[in-house]
This record gives sequence, C-alpha cells and structure tokens, in this order.
Amino acid sequence: MSGLPRPLRDLVETFRKFPGVGEKSAQRFVFYLIRQSPKELERLSAMIRALPTAVVRCEVCGMIDESSPCRFDRDPSRDRSILCVVAETTDVAVIEQSGEFLGRYHVLGGVLNPIEGATPDTLNIAPLTGRIRKEKIKEVIIATNPDMEGETTALHLRKILEPTHVTVSRLGKGLPMGATLEYADEVTVANALKGRLRV
Amino acid sequence: MSGLPRPLRDLVETFRKFPGVGEKSAQRFVFYLIRQSPKELERLSAMIRALPTAVVRCEVCGMIDESSPCRFDRDPSRDRSILCVVAETTDVAVIEQSGEFLGRYHVLGGVLNPIEGATPDTLNIAPLTGRIRKEKIKEVIIATNPDMEGETTALHLRKILEPTHVTVSRLGKGLPMGATLEYADEVTVANALKGRLRV
Repeated sequence: MSGLPRPLRDLVETFRKFPGVGEKSAQRFVFYLIRQSPKELERLSAMIRALPTAVVRCEVCGMIDESSPCRFDRDPSRDRSILCVVAETTDVAVIEQSGEFLGRYHVLGGVLNPIEGATPDTLNIAPLTGRIRKEKIKEVIIATNPDMEGETTALHLRKILEPTHVTVSRLGKGLPMGATLEYADEVTVANALKGRLRV
Repeated sequence: MSGLPRPLRDLVETFRKFPGVGEKSAQRFVFYLIRQSPKELERLSAMIRALPTAVVRCEVCGMIDESSPCRFDRDPSRDRSILCVVAETTDVAVIEQSGEFLGRYHVLGGVLNPIEGATPDTLNIAPLTGRIRKEKIKEVIIATNPDMEGETTALHLRKILEPTHVTVSRLGKGLPMGATLEYADEVTVANALKGRLRV
C-alpha cells in the first residue's frame, strides 16, 4: 500500500503473513488497532511478547499447554489406557467440547505432507509406540481430519501401530449434524452408508 | 475455547475483536504466532506498542500519517484548489492507487451513523467549510462509500457546502450501490473519479 505511512505498512506486511489474511484484511486490522487505546495496544503487545514463555509443549503428549506435563497428563481422573491422536493442539479443544472422550491425547504437531516438509521425522510420531508400551495403552483413536493429508497420516499411523497389537480406530465418518442430504457431497454420503449404524 | 491454555485463550479473544475475524481464524492466528521465533514475536509486539506514537492525525486534513501536516498537505506539487473528502485514511490509499487524483484530502474519520454515535460533531466535518474559505478550495469531490451511511454523509456535506459556492461532486460511475470503497479495484476507482457527477 503505497499510500500508507511506513509504520502502518510494516504492520500490514506482518499481518499479511497470518494464515488466510490478505492485503485488505491486514489493512483493516491495522486501522482497527489505530482506533484502540494505548492501554489496549500495550495489552496485546505484552501478550504477543509473552507467548514464547507463556506456553510449553507437553513432554508426554506434545500438546501446547501452560505446563509440562499438560493438564490432561497430570489429571488422575482421565482414563490412562486410551489415547486420542490429533494433528494440532486446537483439535484437542474440539474433542474436549464434545464431552465424549475421557482419555488422554497425543498431538502430532501437524499431518504428513512431504511437499511442505512434514515427514514422519518432523512430526511427533516416533514417541507414540514407546508411549503405548510404557503407559500400557489399550486403545488408540486416530482423529486426524478426513482429508488427503489426514487420511495419509492415519494410514501411516495404523501401519506403525500394527506391531503393538493395540486397538486402533478412526473417527467415524458420515453426515455432519444438521446437514442436508441433498447438499452432501458423494464421498460424505458414501462414508455415511459405509458407517451406517443399526437403530 | 475451553480446551486452550489461558494465555492462548486471552489472545484468541483479542483477535476475535479484529474486524472480520471469527473464532477459528483467531485460533489459527494464535497457533501461527506460537510457531514464530521469539525475535519475530518481539518485532510484532514492538510495532503494536509503538502504534500510538508512530502515527498522528494531520491537523490540516485529519488523515493518519507519520507527521502533521501530512505528506499531501506538505507536497507543493499537489493541486491545492481541489479536495477529495473520504471517510477513512485507508480510502486515501485507494484513491492514490488510481493515479487519477492530484489534489489533497479531507478525512472525516468515519461516516454519519447516529445509532453508532457518529454524528456531525464527532466527525471531522466542521473544519471543512473553514478550509474551503481559508485555502481557497474551488472543488470538493465527495468520495464516501455508495452505501446508506456514505450517501447520508454526502447529502449532509452537500448541504453544509452550499453556502461556500464551491463546486461539489460525488464519485459516481463504476461503483455499484452497496459496494465498499475499500474493496474496489483501481480501475473502478479511476472510472469513478473520471465520471464524477455534479450534485
């Protein structure tokens, strides 16, 4: 934006690197910030600066939390025999909100995507088999996304988990709650048919 | 997001207040930031903290710039007899990118919107008539958005400009009703400048 003063242009450039943020959105963010009070800006500034020390990666499961071990690995009320494998820490929040899972987690820190440099070595995959033996895990639920990278990752996990003889499952696929059959894509409908449950 | 540690949740809440940012985007921003180096976070933090002192409002035209008077009001090459009235400083950048306007600006700092508390008194409207007399302005182009608030503001401006006998025009051709100036491409803006209509 040639028309913007330098400090604003620099900030626009920085916001443009945020995921899913284009030029116009980045500009709107900057003009939104200009309208905030110095106190509010100081607060945001401090939060961003504190990020590297505010959170850590849990040495047990790889989740990002305030301390290591994370709250789930410290919690004696969680079922320690069952692990839910997710791609990112944000996915933990989604599973928790469902209220259906009372075990613990294993956070991969991404999904397999060789083109973008995400290989089994760069993800938190190797420690998983060790955890299963050491922590006497009986069941592993693979909760990666039902897209290409997520499916590839799930396949890879199933393969490396085979020698451990643990029960491996994958999140059920089908129609999302509130969906309309008429607008569902064919893969979703096929998955819903394959995953049909007796009622 | 109950599943996120407190420092991240606070930051998600803050990003949610950014224009056009929902829960999921705010979360993605936070996880994007976690992956950045402490040095990069320090840089962003410093930029945000410096915002209140990095830019000022031009005492002549009301635009946000690095100094007051702004670069346009200091520039001897700009046509001093013609003013383009815009709602926000971002709109100046859009007009400049069209390359069709060589005069100076008057930035209202918003548009009339009584429900949200934006009245003629809260906007930079009163100084406009004074400028026209003192700076011997011959023409005023009203470049508020072609939406309800923008049109209302334009009407109000035309009324208060009547006694000054200045030529008043309004951006017209090329901008469809309900559009936002901020998102217009530069050709459309250039056409709108060329096709401005006397009101």
